[in-house]
Amino acid sequence: MADNPIITLTTDFGYRDPLAGIMKGVILSINPGVNIVDITHGIGKYNVREAALTIGMSYHEFPSSTIHVVVTDPGVGSERRPIMVVTEDYYFIGPDNGVFSLVYSESERCEVLHLTADHYFMRDKSATFHGRDVFAPVASWLSKGVISSKFGEPVTDFVKLPFPVPSTPTKTTLEGEVIHIDHFGNAIINIKVSDLKLLRNASEKGVLKIVAKGKEIPFKQYYSQAKDKGLYALINSMNYLELFIYRGDAATEFNIKVGDTLGVMLVG
Amino acid sequence: MADNPIITLTTDFGYRDPLAGIMKGVILSINPGVNIVDITHGIGKYNVREAALTIGMSYHEFPSSTIHVVVTDPGVGSERRPIMVVTEDYYFIGPDNGVFSLVYSESERCEVLHLTADHYFMRDKSATFHGRDVFAPVASWLSKGVISSKFGEPVTDFVKLPFPVPSTPTKTTLEGEVIHIDHFGNAIINIKVSDLKLLRNASEKGVLKIVAKGKEIPFKQYYSQAKDKGLYALINSMNYLELFIYRGDAATEFNIKVGDTLGVMLVG
Amino acid sequence: MADNPIITLTTDFGYRDPLAGIMKGVILSINPGVNIVDITHGIGKYNVREAALTIGMSYHEFPSSTIHVVVTDPGVGSERRPIMVVTEDYYFIGPDNGVFSLVYSESERCEVLHLTADHYFMRDKSATFHGRDVFAPVASWLSKGVISSKFGEPVTDFVKLPFPVPSTPTKTTLEGEVIHIDHFGNAIINIKVSDLKLLRNASEKGVLKIVAKGKEIPFKQYYSQAKDKGLYALINSMNYLELFIYRGDAATEFNIKVGDTLGVMLVG
Repeated sequence: MADNPIITLTTDFGYRDPLAGIMKGVILSINPGVNIVDITHGIGKYNVREAALTIGMSYHEFPSSTIHVVVTDPGVGSERRPIMVVTEDYYFIGPDNGVFSLVYSESERCEVLHLTADHYFMRDKSATFHGRDVFAPVASWLSKGVISSKFGEPVTDFVKLPFPVPSTPTKTTLEGEVIHIDHFGNAIINIKVSDLKLLRNASEKGVLKIVAKGKEIPFKQYYSQAKDKGLYALINSMNYLELFIYRGDAATEFNIKVGDTLGVMLVG
Repeated sequence: MADNPIITLTTDFGYRDPLAGIMKGVILSINPGVNIVDITHGIGKYNVREAALTIGMSYHEFPSSTIHVVVTDPGVGSERRPIMVVTEDYYFIGPDNGVFSLVYSESERCEVLHLTADHYFMRDKSATFHGRDVFAPVASWLSKGVISSKFGEPVTDFVKLPFPVPSTPTKTTLEGEVIHIDHFGNAIINIKVSDLKLLRNASEKGVLKIVAKGKEIPFKQYYSQAKDKGLYALINSMNYLELFIYRGDAATEFNIKVGDTLGVMLVG
Repeated sequence: MADNPIITLTTDFGYRDPLAGIMKGVILSINPGVNIVDITHGIGKYNVREAALTIGMSYHEFPSSTIHVVVTDPGVGSERRPIMVVTEDYYFIGPDNGVFSLVYSESERCEVLHLTADHYFMRDKSATFHGRDVFAPVASWLSKGVISSKFGEPVTDFVKLPFPVPSTPTKTTLEGEVIHIDHFGNAIINIKVSDLKLLRNASEKGVLKIVAKGKEIPFKQYYSQAKDKGLYALINSMNYLELFIYRGDAATEFNIKVGDTLGVMLVG
């Protein structure tokens, strides 16, 4: 393992109960030298899709060998398996409910292990808190240098959530949808800058026109270019198309929700 | 002290003001090598009972010698004393308002010191922020190796909150109450698995029947065994009886509040 | 740099999105040995004034050489410059939008650098997320020992927000205003204990009378001296005048808002 092992936590535990604190206690009891980093404990309750998107936006910003633990886990205690995902650069530990879907699709090499070596689990393994009893201790033993293959056997039938991808009704048209509303009320669309480039390639001339809520949305380079409180679009810092109001809450003002559709077309 | 000293923080400061951040600054100014772990800053305002329950559920998951600081402190500045609790395995620092009640009842050996050695306090000791001026610096000096007896004198008249315990109207009946509603809307009851075992011992035969809100509540092993949106019970990961809805908010749906009563009886 | 370098984070990112987590990943990728401390991510959205007050109340509690990163940044991507502020004891990194106004007025020596050395930025510098692409990497390189002058050129025309100061209509009268409502509903006034001392100096005799909302507000030494649910005043732990209800929410109960005025007069 790295000299300065890091374990990140991404959960839907919220900030009132001590669940994340308890996981930290378990981790530090096994490896007091590990650096625990909170990504967020504010994932929407039981929202596996939001957790998948959140870890998908974050994991590659961390040093290689970082261990990412994700717990959003409505099915805990059922037949749902605890897994470890090993990619070129990172480790991921959590439930096999699709929470690592974006990791699977972005990684060259990707091994998924069913966590079965229960001598690495907490003794009093509970039916309801895998975060404390399975994921935290496995992450901590891994950070101490236990090699990944010791924790279980490879599986290939892991759960992959179908994330909505933009459709292309014609060569010069893209149809996407809102996949996330962020803290500021910005609406993130499932259209990436690479999708727009493909559209551009369809023709030498023409301009990209964005249509949402029945209106054309002007395109800006950055937030403060929008001088009024209208709805605007930009490519955000994660390379996604995003709808925003400058210093305002676009989702509330324009009643935008996850799942709302949006079109981009090359015209003229 | 341990090689990797840990100080945990549990407060009702919330996540907007910099109070917890200020305590961390004070701690790191005295001992830059200590590992500060947030358990939660989301305790209900002034809710000493919730703080007592939160630290009670968490402290034993940490490595021995961990220093647990708890600040939920409506009476600060009054005659209420700052104290340190020393048990077999842990240190606790906070106000003498009952916040360590569960620690007292669970610990074999337990010394309580009134913190009076004010040369370990911050110079500009304030009347309103003991977290910064007393608890943080004392915790940090303790983490640096100052022995506990240097900080004050033993007291025996410390405050112990009477936590509601289940009553046993008959040999085969238990009456408990809701002591906490968690982030997911689950209702935690003051009946532990050990209480249920005592009830079981009353008779060789019969089954346990749970009654709340005038209805029998079916018992499950884990959340996902409940296939509909009805109210169910299970033994949770802290070994407490808990009422839940699978992927739902039981407290909101069934209007359950802290203090609501619930009965368990051995029948048949 | 110090042996145990510290980077603090103060933002308006909230606790649901992974923005703060992503900044931590960037920081640890450059310097895995740095200690990252959250002051708060709960600053009101786009509220530069609240961020300025928050870091102003907190920075001096940290060890010298601490690097304070503040991101509340409605104008990001525009002509607004990224800056580093170097004082006798601390470093500050953030946008040039006034967020360090209290640092400027409190520091003896204070150099402000426009961050232009973009080889210390992230390669794929984004138009919308300076926290990740500029502030986090610059803070981390600084924590590794790169000297401050390497990051840019000194500027003198940095933005200083005019913070409301109490007015003195007469020698024995002060007029202040509410500058912050905290988590507990306490209302912090822009009158410091030093202002009250100046007022006291105007006369040997007389008592200080506080008037707000058309009524005299009794003065207390600490919260629990107030035995009923009336509105009271005290000098808080940051040395500001504060209105409070004992174990209650003064702002909600008495409809107090940021900007509300309050008078103090020396009478009798």
